[in-house]
Amino acid sequence: MALDRLIEKIAEKQNPTVAGLDPKLDYIPDHIKQAAFAQLGKTMEGAAEAIWVYNRGLIDALCTVVPAVKPQAAYYEMYGWQGMQTLAKTVAYAQEKGMFVIMDGKRNDIGTTMQAYAAAHLGVTEIAGGKFTAFGADALTVNGYLGSDGILPLTAVCKEMDKAIFVLVKTSNPSSGELQNLCLEGAESIYLRMGKMCEKWGEGIPGKYGYSGVGAVVGATYPQQLTELRAELPRTFFLVPGYGAQGGTAGDIAGAFDENGLGAIVNSSRGIMCAWQKEKCDPQDYAGAALREAQKMQRLLADVTGKITLP
Amino acid sequence: MALDRLIEKIAEKQNPTVAGLDPKLDYIPDHIKQAAFAQLGKTMEGAAEAIWVYNRGLIDALCTVVPAVKPQAAYYEMYGWQGMQTLAKTVAYAQEKGMFVIMDGKRNDIGTTMQAYAAAHLGVTEIAGGKFTAFGADALTVNGYLGSDGILPLTAVCKEMDKAIFVLVKTSNPSSGELQNLCLEGAESIYLRMGKMCEKWGEGIPGKYGYSGVGAVVGATYPQQLTELRAELPRTFFLVPGYGAQGGTAGDIAGAFDENGLGAIVNSSRGIMCAWQKEKCDPQDYAGAALREAQKMQRLLADVTGKITLP
Repeated sequence: MALDRLIEKIAEKQNPTVAGLDPKLDYIPDHIKQAAFAQLGKTMEGAAEAIWVYNRGLIDALCTVVPAVKPQAAYYEMYGWQGMQTLAKTVAYAQEKGMFVIMDGKRNDIGTTMQAYAAAHLGVTEIAGGKFTAFGADALTVNGYLGSDGILPLTAVCKEMDKAIFVLVKTSNPSSGELQNLCLEGAESIYLRMGKMCEKWGEGIPGKYGYSGVGAVVGATYPQQLTELRAELPRTFFLVPGYGAQGGTAGDIAGAFDENGLGAIVNSSRGIMCAWQKEKCDPQDYAGAALREAQKMQRLLADVTGKITLP
Repeated sequence: MALDRLIEKIAEKQNPTVAGLDPKLDYIPDHIKQAAFAQLGKTMEGAAEAIWVYNRGLIDALCTVVPAVKPQAAYYEMYGWQGMQTLAKTVAYAQEKGMFVIMDGKRNDIGTTMQAYAAAHLGVTEIAGGKFTAFGADALTVNGYLGSDGILPLTAVCKEMDKAIFVLVKTSNPSSGELQNLCLEGAESIYLRMGKMCEKWGEGIPGKYGYSGVGAVVGATYPQQLTELRAELPRTFFLVPGYGAQGGTAGDIAGAFDENGLGAIVNSSRGIMCAWQKEKCDPQDYAGAALREAQKMQRLLADVTGKITLP
């Protein structure tokens, strides 16, 4: 089961971190942009090439320490099909380097359309009997507002192709409570109801470490809800955004982990990608700065998880 | 305001229909696929070319009668960056032919990431001072589960670039009620609460015909909720999926329209795209069949709306 593979990588590296790859051009050192623009112009092609070179450097530096990357689809879509080509190359390259790839697409739809998204991001696309990989990630973030019709086409592909999904439950942003914190009749919150739906959707994809193939997105910025949801959703693995730039600390995340130090993977995007700007180091050393930041985050999380062990 | 432009096209053509462009390879006549495969192989490139030729034929046939198209992003993403290139070409071609383009992407995220989606699908992408169009639709469907942090970056771009969004409120699928129909404390449903949020988000983008730039997706398959929401959300224009193949009839949609026959645009995807298969006509005439089906739908909707007039 796909999240078993992720869990094993986390234990092997003793690091429950996923590095977000949200490559805004502002984050990319000038020498990379200038080389790409010199080759392909100040165009979508040039931007897509700069992102590809930048990502490759980050992956090369991080792959020995960090078990997973999370490319955010929006930052590739904004560079058009050229950006999407870089997205596909980035996914494949990270996997070659042994990393687990979570596509952050927050996709949602129903029936055959959801099957199309599943083919695009997790499965294969059939063309006249042949099979092709569009983006080929190991897991995809999804939005469950449409209910089971939007999730079951994905869980079918997850079972068949050994993939996983993470459903938005309690997001890290300030306004997440506008809808997610509302109480249903009987006083259960919407996010808790969504979380319980994840537990149910995951029943068909059990894993050997107690977690199913249907994970949940729960923000680092709401420690109380993280702790509540860890207790209520014992089989649901958490993807935790909001660490670092959004304000969440290692201490805030403590409640996300189980007694083995498992149960969650924590995302850092800007913190790792822009470490070279914060460090004010030589921009040529941007990947080294990313690695140093990832190692610092690893140490801070280790204080919270203790030794991570497979049950 | 972008939806004013859509409303004027609807009134001009006396047709509140949007043709969904969800181009599964199964829907495309063999002669188109064979020509594309002969040129580019049974590959992603070949599939993307077949979809592009097929879409162009549909747009050429429909543009005199149908005011808008709605490409479903999933069916392009599944063909990788090559499919995304076809998506960009399709949007531009439909606009050249005078059609309003609603990108059905159901995108959702927060802050700078939502800005990236807005740039990708509605706005422009800046590269070293130059501005480029990635996908350039007139409107985008979005999922509001994350609250205002996910919507306000879009409404800012809508105001600046004369674009619109449609937020998922009550979707057409059988399981939509699992979450959307749940009652909050005080007995208001989640979908109604989401609808009221749309009214509020739309306040900053008023239109001259009474509808704001923040529309709502409300399914044809739930006539009672359509009527309820039309009454509760007087400034929110509806995008209505679920007509035809999903079971919704013209009669089911009656409640979506106001006294001027405005207030909603009804989507048909498979019904129009696959009309040639249902008609069993010469596949060379697939676009003619699509036009005939669109004209039939227009007549059925006219019985419900009466003459459509600008207030």
